[in-house]
Amino acid sequence: MTAVDFGFSVEARDGMARAGHVRTARGVIRTPAFMPVGTAATVKAAWPETVRKAGADILLGNTYHLMLRPGAERVARLGGLHKFMNWPHPILTDSGGFQVMSLSSLRKITEEGVTFRSHHDGSSHAMSPERSIEIQRLLDSDIAMQLDECVALPASRDETARAMELSLRWARRSKDAFLASAPPPGRAIFGIVQGGTEFDLRRASAEGLVEIGFPGYALGGLAVGEPQPVMFETIAATTPHLPQDRPRYLMGVGKPSDIVGAVARGIDMFDCVIPTRSGRNGQAFTRQGTLNIRNAKHAEDQGPLDSRCHCPACRDYSRAYIHHLVKSQEILGAMLMTAHNLTYYQDLMVGLRSAIRRGRLAAFVEAFEAGGADY
Amino acid sequence: MTAVDFGFSVEARDGMARAGHVRTARGVIRTPAFMPVGTAATVKAAWPETVRKAGADILLGNTYHLMLRPGAERVARLGGLHKFMNWPHPILTDSGGFQVMSLSSLRKITEEGVTFRSHHDGSSHAMSPERSIEIQRLLDSDIAMQLDECVALPASRDETARAMELSLRWARRSKDAFLASAPPPGRAIFGIVQGGTEFDLRRASAEGLVEIGFPGYALGGLAVGEPQPVMFETIAATTPHLPQDRPRYLMGVGKPSDIVGAVARGIDMFDCVIPTRSGRNGQAFTRQGTLNIRNAKHAEDQGPLDSRCHCPACRDYSRAYIHHLVKSQEILGAMLMTAHNLTYYQDLMVGLRSAIRRGRLAAFVEAFEAGGADY
Repeated sequence: MTAVDFGFSVEARDGMARAGHVRTARGVIRTPAFMPVGTAATVKAAWPETVRKAGADILLGNTYHLMLRPGAERVARLGGLHKFMNWPHPILTDSGGFQVMSLSSLRKITEEGVTFRSHHDGSSHAMSPERSIEIQRLLDSDIAMQLDECVALPASRDETARAMELSLRWARRSKDAFLASAPPPGRAIFGIVQGGTEFDLRRASAEGLVEIGFPGYALGGLAVGEPQPVMFETIAATTPHLPQDRPRYLMGVGKPSDIVGAVARGIDMFDCVIPTRSGRNGQAFTRQGTLNIRNAKHAEDQGPLDSRCHCPACRDYSRAYIHHLVKSQEILGAMLMTAHNLTYYQDLMVGLRSAIRRGRLAAFVEAFEAGGADY
Repeated sequence: MTAVDFGFSVEARDGMARAGHVRTARGVIRTPAFMPVGTAATVKAAWPETVRKAGADILLGNTYHLMLRPGAERVARLGGLHKFMNWPHPILTDSGGFQVMSLSSLRKITEEGVTFRSHHDGSSHAMSPERSIEIQRLLDSDIAMQLDECVALPASRDETARAMELSLRWARRSKDAFLASAPPPGRAIFGIVQGGTEFDLRRASAEGLVEIGFPGYALGGLAVGEPQPVMFETIAATTPHLPQDRPRYLMGVGKPSDIVGAVARGIDMFDCVIPTRSGRNGQAFTRQGTLNIRNAKHAEDQGPLDSRCHCPACRDYSRAYIHHLVKSQEILGAMLMTAHNLTYYQDLMVGLRSAIRRGRLAAFVEAFEAGGADY
């Protein structure tokens, strides 16, 4: 593989929205991009080929899960995460911070970092900006994330400000550790904007990160319970303070309507467990909205989940069959629902990218909201 | 599709073993054949393409499970089992009798048939030879099985004889019902030899069935706890009383060594949940014997499950990765283990067929028992 520098090119704009490419050593990511989540080194219930055929250019791996099992040093000894999980394409790893806050127990946060106990076995672990970056280098991810502090909600303005400022200091330490790790060409680290739904804190966070300087910027701490309009307003209040020539990643988002609205406000990258987790629970995304395949009305429906979908589940299987499988708790039910939902999400991104390039995003959003977008 | 009559041709013999083809309307089955089990209209954790690529010519569907969920009439309204589950190749259905005996509750057996309650919801059902055949026609299976009575073990000789004689009377009623159902060309019904491990009862059962006349004959009530040598002796005592020009199917068998020994004693067809169920539990079959992938010694093993296997799990994934997935209860672990074990079983059948055709079965069996057969 020829060494390639990490880069981002915006090739079309429509309002605040952008379409382009992120370039990494392991391949190009078409933006706006949706990253399926491969928590424990697998996108649950999917062969990697299925994820790729759905249209994914990049996956997300969870540092918290992988450091606990099988362990970052073990993954490194086995040749890195890409080889381990048979995904030769780009991988973004999160910092582990969010899952430490949401899954582990006995957390203690200091200036240095966070100590916690594993949700698997109660074992003690420590995470600092430096250790998070070390783990992400051991996994050999293409895009690493800084360690940040995600405050638990509800949080006061003071608490939100304190966590944002700590995250800024950790951003500098994360970047320093990343550079000190001598990453091969084509890798990048992103900073993470915090500040809750306080616009001035978001602005201060963004400006602080830009001063440090990152190849890409994420928005963390959104889609954590606030109403969708508040999330949209916070995005719109933040992106003007981020450079035009760097990708913007909205972490952990979201429902299709969240993605459409965020793209219109200048976001380039997304990750979320919704398509996979909801799929395993029986919720299918379609161009006509969501459906619960467990509903009895599907028991003899010979049609596909979505008549305009080209995925293997829609090509070869009826709603009636998938209803039967999901009701019977058959693994193939999870496999078909996952393949479909991942394809739906990627098709939505194809539609958004195409609409931006044609200068038709407003019409796309309107049609999407009416349940009839051309994607 | 041109109408084709059901048929069986023996093309090579080696001792008691035979290699040939079963011809059905939906395709040819190379014998000796192993049928993966698709209990609830799915081979668990496998795309149909995966099962086919492993080398399967035919699947088994369980009448008991399918009659309860989604229901035989529903499957018929949806176009039959093949279309429902996206398997256009041959399907054999059992009669439902074995699962009624092993899974349902409040069973009551009379001359007419059996009444029982569903293990799902306690609902009452009745099964007669005529209803079993009707269900199998609704499913549109290629090979139907007569209803028989499988006695619970341990059973006295008197009880074994009584059940065998009842099964013979049900065999005639099953055949009559099958013929009365006007099956399309290329379908068949098999009779089932019962009689436990009493050789004279097995002979009487076989002779009674041959007098009725079937396109194929199964051996039921074996591999139910008796030692392997007793099973082999019972097979050897039975096959001489079955016609040479009809396929012989050993139901519910078995481990690889069971299959090898039974093929050497004249069996042509097998079905068993072992490769799929064991795979989901972490047991892999390899040319060097079985291994438990959960064992810690595999945690950093970069080799494949079986270095001579061509399956996708062995081609693209390490034991270390599969160990991680299975320990983490990830669905992909079940998917990879299932793909591998099904491929192992089909490769074993390829090896057996090839050995018979080359007149080298004795050497194959010897090498197999030493862990080094050339397959």
